[in-house]
Amino acid sequence: MKSYRQELWFSINSRRGLLNITPQINVCLEESGISEGLCLVNAMHITASVFINDDEPGLHADYEKWLETLAPHEPITRYAHNLTGEDNGDAHLKRCIMGREVVVAITEGILDFGPWEQIFYGEFDGNRKKRVLVKIIGS
Amino acid sequence: MKSYRQELWFSINSRRGLLNITPQINVCLEESGISEGLCLVNAMHITASVFINDDEPGLHADYEKWLETLAPHEPITRYAHNLTGEDNGDAHLKRCIMGREVVVAITEGILDFGPWEQIFYGEFDGNRKKRVLVKIIGS
Amino acid sequence: MKSYRQELWFSINSRRGLLNITPQINVCLEESGISEGLCLVNAMHITASVFINDDEPGLHADYEKWLETLAPHEPITRYAHNLTGEDNGDAHLKRCIMGREVVVAITEGILDFGPWEQIFYGEFDGNRKKRVLVKIIGS
Repeated sequence: MKSYRQELWFSINSRRGLLNITPQINVCLEESGISEGLCLVNAMHITASVFINDDEPGLHADYEKWLETLAPHEPITRYAHNLTGEDNGDAHLKRCIMGREVVVAITEGILDFGPWEQIFYGEFDGNRKKRVLVKIIGS
Repeated sequence: MKSYRQELWFSINSRRGLLNITPQINVCLEESGISEGLCLVNAMHITASVFINDDEPGLHADYEKWLETLAPHEPITRYAHNLTGEDNGDAHLKRCIMGREVVVAITEGILDFGPWEQIFYGEFDGNRKKRVLVKIIGS
Repeated sequence: MKSYRQELWFSINSRRGLLNITPQINVCLEESGISEGLCLVNAMHITASVFINDDEPGLHADYEKWLETLAPHEPITRYAHNLTGEDNGDAHLKRCIMGREVVVAITEGILDFGPWEQIFYGEFDGNRKKRVLVKIIGS
């Protein structure tokens, strides 16, 4: 069994934002030399997500509006977590909705995706550098 | 390390519906000949889910009602995504709640499940054929 | 390829509660002797979650309040599932938000985590013993 590990760093210059990281994952997969296996991609931070969906700007605007409805950023006093001095209580909840990680099948050396699947980094507490972990195992 | 791949096609004859696909996954597992490992089952479409829960009709009715509360289908103008000509903006959000994929342990040649765990395909934009990917790795 | 399996039993003495189970997963990892691979940790029950977030009591209070807003326990008549005689309809929905499972990279014999990542068992229908499955594969 072969294994591969890489950290990817991202910096979103706003509180929230979505970034298509499929090209970077493809580079990792090529570096790994693995043709059959599983690829785990996870946020290493607990106020960010990795998820799979469509690269369509309208949808991304819908996510932003919807997540703000389900877990509003303000007033920051609504979250007990913010009593620690943080203002990111909402980001911990938003990340639960969108998920920490994806596991993707690797088949014949490529990400085994349906027609519209793309991997996104979802930032909910940005304006700083944060990491995504890529771990691939297989043969 | 052995690996196995199969696509399963499903057609739900309504906009939304849930289907217990555990029998089909068991067939895949048997075909794979893998006795120890991990089994990934994921929707290949971004308006559908694969998730694990109970095969109880009342619960499935609760899911339907609850998801419509969290991300209503109508009015379709509420979603920027629908400006593309689609009417499935809600389906992209519902799938985030229910998840894209499950990873199941394989132990002694069977799905290593608790007493009530069953694998479901969740369709949120149906009336057409769509695919689920099964990838099993192990020994 | 090596594989390892363990069941962990937990009993939360209230309807709902969160428990940091990272120490128990570390014991499993050490027992496994696996240094490179993937570790699946999943609830074996469908009214409980395994998820990764921060071990901060204010955040845990926020989760409790937020999940009760999204899927209230009462009135129990609001859920069709409760017509079966159960009173845990809400627990099945809360577990969808928080997730069934996590997959964690194993690198050089340790859980490959960012600075604040901790694994939690989330109980939404407690007052009885329930199980978590740990499956590790790798080399």
